[in-house]
Amino acid sequence: MKEFDLISRFFAPLAEGYPGAMGLKDDAAVVATAAGADLVITKDIIVEGIHFPVGEDPETIARRLLRVNLSDLAAKGARPEGYLVGGVFPRTTDEGWFTKFAEGLRRDQEEFGVFLAGGDTVATDGPLTLSLTAFGQVMKGGALLRSGAGRGDLVFVSGTIGDAVLGLMVLQDDLEVADTGDRDYLVRRFRLPEPRVGLGPRLAGLASAAADVSDGLVADLGHICEASGVGARIDASAVPLSAAARAVVERAARDTAGGELLAKLLGGGDDYEIVFTVPPDRASAVISVAEECGIPLSRIGRVTSGGAVSVLDGAGREIEVPSAGYDHFQG
Amino acid sequence: MKEFDLISRFFAPLAEGYPGAMGLKDDAAVVATAAGADLVITKDIIVEGIHFPVGEDPETIARRLLRVNLSDLAAKGARPEGYLVGGVFPRTTDEGWFTKFAEGLRRDQEEFGVFLAGGDTVATDGPLTLSLTAFGQVMKGGALLRSGAGRGDLVFVSGTIGDAVLGLMVLQDDLEVADTGDRDYLVRRFRLPEPRVGLGPRLAGLASAAADVSDGLVADLGHICEASGVGARIDASAVPLSAAARAVVERAARDTAGGELLAKLLGGGDDYEIVFTVPPDRASAVISVAEECGIPLSRIGRVTSGGAVSVLDGAGREIEVPSAGYDHFQG
Repeated sequence: MKEFDLISRFFAPLAEGYPGAMGLKDDAAVVATAAGADLVITKDIIVEGIHFPVGEDPETIARRLLRVNLSDLAAKGARPEGYLVGGVFPRTTDEGWFTKFAEGLRRDQEEFGVFLAGGDTVATDGPLTLSLTAFGQVMKGGALLRSGAGRGDLVFVSGTIGDAVLGLMVLQDDLEVADTGDRDYLVRRFRLPEPRVGLGPRLAGLASAAADVSDGLVADLGHICEASGVGARIDASAVPLSAAARAVVERAARDTAGGELLAKLLGGGDDYEIVFTVPPDRASAVISVAEECGIPLSRIGRVTSGGAVSVLDGAGREIEVPSAGYDHFQG
Repeated sequence: MKEFDLISRFFAPLAEGYPGAMGLKDDAAVVATAAGADLVITKDIIVEGIHFPVGEDPETIARRLLRVNLSDLAAKGARPEGYLVGGVFPRTTDEGWFTKFAEGLRRDQEEFGVFLAGGDTVATDGPLTLSLTAFGQVMKGGALLRSGAGRGDLVFVSGTIGDAVLGLMVLQDDLEVADTGDRDYLVRRFRLPEPRVGLGPRLAGLASAAADVSDGLVADLGHICEASGVGARIDASAVPLSAAARAVVERAARDTAGGELLAKLLGGGDDYEIVFTVPPDRASAVISVAEECGIPLSRIGRVTSGGAVSVLDGAGREIEVPSAGYDHFQG
């Protein structure tokens, strides 16, 4: 397949409806910025065999890559608008693969209201490598950063924590979940995260700092603390778990491994929820936001003057949380 | 080397001076858009062994990749501002390589006034793969597109055409150039193109359509014609050649291959000059712009109602120009 045909058949339809993409017939995208808006840009690059297994369903690859980048924008308080894709495709990639890949992008474009705005492709001997750059707009000066958390701020998190690490454990045969519904739910939470695009932009102007939970709740709150020069204390019993995750933890507790597993959930990555800090006088406004957008929020702790994140159980004892930080460069 | 160390040692220094990069300690870049400005974003992805030879000097890889993207922005009339890099680095990449790569970026950042604003890295078994996303600002509604050329418009091109294809021929041992100075000049024009960032933004509001010469003068003017629904006629004798290219063509002419070689220059890519169209009543303004920014401009033809680009020699005979279009997806 020629690059021109690839673009016109599979990618150009994804740019329809976004004038600044110029039908992918130009070399660049033009983003019409709103008056009083800043632009937020984020970029990920993923490689077959490292970030996803060889032979992974192309629709899932496409949707997951798009979603993790939309999650980055949401955590910055930006309303996602468009994205560019750089694709290194093995020469053996067939039309069926491209059809499914484009279908995945199309489904999520519709769900999240974004458009393909540009990109670049190249055919090689592999491995499949995809770079995605997403952009969105936020009110000028209102982008949520990791810095900005102040001592005494409340710590909130959206949705539920730990489903993704359990889903990954299921996929890696490290965890058995008898209930099929629970198992499917956990795996889906890992494979197809739910970027909180409805929540993030509403937090701009309210939250003092924010991050999406990609490295793990404790690690990402740790990034906030480091950038803000503060610490935080999390009440483990306040961390929201899904019914499926709770069932897994309770079953493990019967085998006396419940505490260890809970710590793993708090350290596990890939939830793509938003963890954020809020000055106490804005807490009620945040609770109203949660009601407006229908995304559950939990208050899980408080910002302290210490320089680290500590997690306490119901009895006030500190829980050791393992780092799930995945470092491709670590030897 | 850990990803964190890689970023803090080699990449974070390149983000100094750009507040929206947040020292590369956040997940995204925040671009403070000027009132009345649009943002232009462009992206390229390049792979070792395809876009550049294995073992290529890391400084040249970095600078060329940045420059071709700055060229895209310039051809859109945008003032380049920043860029994000997605790097897939072989695990064997050593500190010396990263030092040189970063040094290349630093040199061109200083030359062109841009900053590293974000990115992502991953270590793999190879090949070295780099994705670069560059952005810049242009007055609202003023981005230069491929569409917009009108019949009767004049066709201009900046600098000189054909040096890069000759430089590539030298590197591939397809051309002998006796004069060392000329040979070095041509090779340098291929390896380290000069993005016309001083010219592009000044053409916004003047040119009716523009493109940078990456696929070749005739091919890129052809893209403009296709997007604009017009044709164009180029006077081959008006196409500007460097002294080095002219010497090569004149030598070939003695062997009766001069015409063929000239056609190759007109079809060859990688010049990264700007080809653009201008309504006749704005021609004098364009000539003033060239004087202001010290970049030579040549008037090389005219937009016609036909749907193709034709090239005529001094006697009015049509010259057949080969397409240098390089299609990675072509079988």
